[in-house]
Amino acid sequence: MVAGTIDQHPLLPVPGIRLSACSAGLYKKIRPDLAIMAIDGNPTVAAVFTRNAFCAAPVIIAREHLQQTTPAWLLINAGNANAGMGKQGITDTLSTCQCLAGLARIPVSAVLPFSTGVIGEPLPVDKICQSLPQLYETLSVDNWDAVAKTIMTTDTVRKGISREVMIEGKSVTLTGIAKGSGMIKPDMATMLAFIATDAAIEKAALQELLNISVEQSFNCISVDGDTSTNDACILIATGKAGNNIIKDVSAPGAVAFRDALTDICRYLAQAIIRDGEGATKFITLEVNGGSDKQECRRVAETIAHSPLIKTALFASDPNWGRILAAIGRAGIRDLDIDNVQIYLNDVCIVDGGERARTYTEEAGREALSGSDINIRVELHCGDASLQFWTCDLSYDYVRINAEYRT
Amino acid sequence: MVAGTIDQHPLLPVPGIRLSACSAGLYKKIRPDLAIMAIDGNPTVAAVFTRNAFCAAPVIIAREHLQQTTPAWLLINAGNANAGMGKQGITDTLSTCQCLAGLARIPVSAVLPFSTGVIGEPLPVDKICQSLPQLYETLSVDNWDAVAKTIMTTDTVRKGISREVMIEGKSVTLTGIAKGSGMIKPDMATMLAFIATDAAIEKAALQELLNISVEQSFNCISVDGDTSTNDACILIATGKAGNNIIKDVSAPGAVAFRDALTDICRYLAQAIIRDGEGATKFITLEVNGGSDKQECRRVAETIAHSPLIKTALFASDPNWGRILAAIGRAGIRDLDIDNVQIYLNDVCIVDGGERARTYTEEAGREALSGSDINIRVELHCGDASLQFWTCDLSYDYVRINAEYRT
Repeated sequence: MVAGTIDQHPLLPVPGIRLSACSAGLYKKIRPDLAIMAIDGNPTVAAVFTRNAFCAAPVIIAREHLQQTTPAWLLINAGNANAGMGKQGITDTLSTCQCLAGLARIPVSAVLPFSTGVIGEPLPVDKICQSLPQLYETLSVDNWDAVAKTIMTTDTVRKGISREVMIEGKSVTLTGIAKGSGMIKPDMATMLAFIATDAAIEKAALQELLNISVEQSFNCISVDGDTSTNDACILIATGKAGNNIIKDVSAPGAVAFRDALTDICRYLAQAIIRDGEGATKFITLEVNGGSDKQECRRVAETIAHSPLIKTALFASDPNWGRILAAIGRAGIRDLDIDNVQIYLNDVCIVDGGERARTYTEEAGREALSGSDINIRVELHCGDASLQFWTCDLSYDYVRINAEYRT
Repeated sequence: MVAGTIDQHPLLPVPGIRLSACSAGLYKKIRPDLAIMAIDGNPTVAAVFTRNAFCAAPVIIAREHLQQTTPAWLLINAGNANAGMGKQGITDTLSTCQCLAGLARIPVSAVLPFSTGVIGEPLPVDKICQSLPQLYETLSVDNWDAVAKTIMTTDTVRKGISREVMIEGKSVTLTGIAKGSGMIKPDMATMLAFIATDAAIEKAALQELLNISVEQSFNCISVDGDTSTNDACILIATGKAGNNIIKDVSAPGAVAFRDALTDICRYLAQAIIRDGEGATKFITLEVNGGSDKQECRRVAETIAHSPLIKTALFASDPNWGRILAAIGRAGIRDLDIDNVQIYLNDVCIVDGGERARTYTEEAGREALSGSDINIRVELHCGDASLQFWTCDLSYDYVRINAEYRT
């Protein structure tokens, strides 16, 4: 991992959000593993979930509850994904939601559950329910850092960031936290992200803003192409900032908010890659000149999922033939390989579909010597562009994933 | 690699085919690296090539020559892929073809060139041309083994097999050789396969028979999803066996020939996987109950390309959650995950979308302890089935591909 390059930013409280965290004994060692979040007032909530057909019980329940009412509480545990548990998994998640709903005197549908951890083990319902009263008594607006630490699984650093932005003269806060050590862990339930703001935004606009930001952040990262059973990203707007409510994405203030939200999502997504299992290099892929975004995405994903390229990057080997071959098999319509250019940072390594005349092996190795590397592909097919982030494939990736359950 | 499990079969001569091999100095050490094959009489020839848009000069020339005339000679070198060399690559390949055409007194278009080796280095045209007279003098029907050794790059064993089959009372021979250490090496030009028979088969039928066999063999293997710039599979029918010419795939004898051809292609394809870089396990994926073959293929490829599953297999870890998650993201229409069953050999590990009640971790580990493993997925969506072959992902894969050029 190149997690040493992840800054630890202070996390600002968000008016209307109170949180708490504790150790409920879901891990063998004592560490925070259970958290709740209370959403005060009249919020709006947007969400995106994993598209995996094999999704965990908390994802099924959270989706259902979002259809039924406005969420008032989040219930989050690490140490157990509650995935692959069939009907028992559903019953167990509902039991824990019911327990929190009883304490808070709300309908069970106002609780959204989230789980991350191992697949195929029963959720420790009793341990969770017995810890909820303590959590309920210790809610505070200042507990974002504690909750960010609670959701860590194989993460080596807590991931979180805040932004303040002016919307029509009102100061608005956004705070986001995430967990994930790469998009690489169906076992570990991969990625959770919780973002809250005190801005007032209508629900449909909030969902559209989240979709736009996720498309340019969490949907543009990959460690190894594996997607998860438990992925979720939640955006809560409490409305406490007192701004004129944002009714659509072109409203005054919507652009400033969208930019701040995208900034937060990108920071969190990139932090996940930097903390990727076994990663020693953080790679920014920039694909320009595609006919459309989807073409650019196909090229980026083909490069990001190529074990041949990823092992060469691990070895700091500027192996341009592997990158060119990946572009060649990305299925781009009307691609003229003779027009393709590839750059490592500012070094042109491929021009006109072959090794650039100005290129030297030394310049290529120099470009790959750092831990942050930019690979730029110029397709010359059209005007679309995309940025994407990935990491290398090292011995440690194999070790971590071969030994995970042993 | 699990190459110890590849049997070394004797290779039978094919009437109408003469071959020779020598060291032309294309490697630093002396080893066979150049071969030619003479096709006597009035043959028919079928071929499939890489679909990679970035294909090597010999692939471009071989495709063109096949359009122009019936091939009479093959010219094959290891040690240099002649890929990523732009116009110079084309000129160089044509020069070597011209040289052989002059010796053999045939038009240059009757020569098909094939190269395998490193990308981005100029083809040593002089060395090749200076060795051709010697090759021309030493042609023999008995040199299949020598040519099979010539095309090896990082292969650890030569790969070849012969079959004899009766077609309407005539004995027909098929002999095939291949190289490739996994579908994993754009650098090393991945896979070449040359198959010859003395059967008489019309060109269109020969191509259709080759397509059918390749679809069930070379197109059903993957080490890591990377495809190559130089992949080629050639099927030559010399017609010397004296059978009534096979005019279409439903003709008498066509089925027996197709089965023998598919058998040879599967043997060679599986040998490539067994010799895969760093492979310690040979995995047969059997996907049943898909709505169509394409669905079965998507499931097989998603499993075969998942680094999480491949590292777990390396560790002999029966990590069923990773397999189930891969099926979940394979994009199967109308998949009811609650109907999915997964078997390791004969051990049911997933039933009804969750861990099978009869399953024990010990039984799973026992199933994974050998080097040949069957993973069977029952989708229960339809009647289609597919077999696919892959291998695990080990430390050695990373080592070989990280250190390849150093």
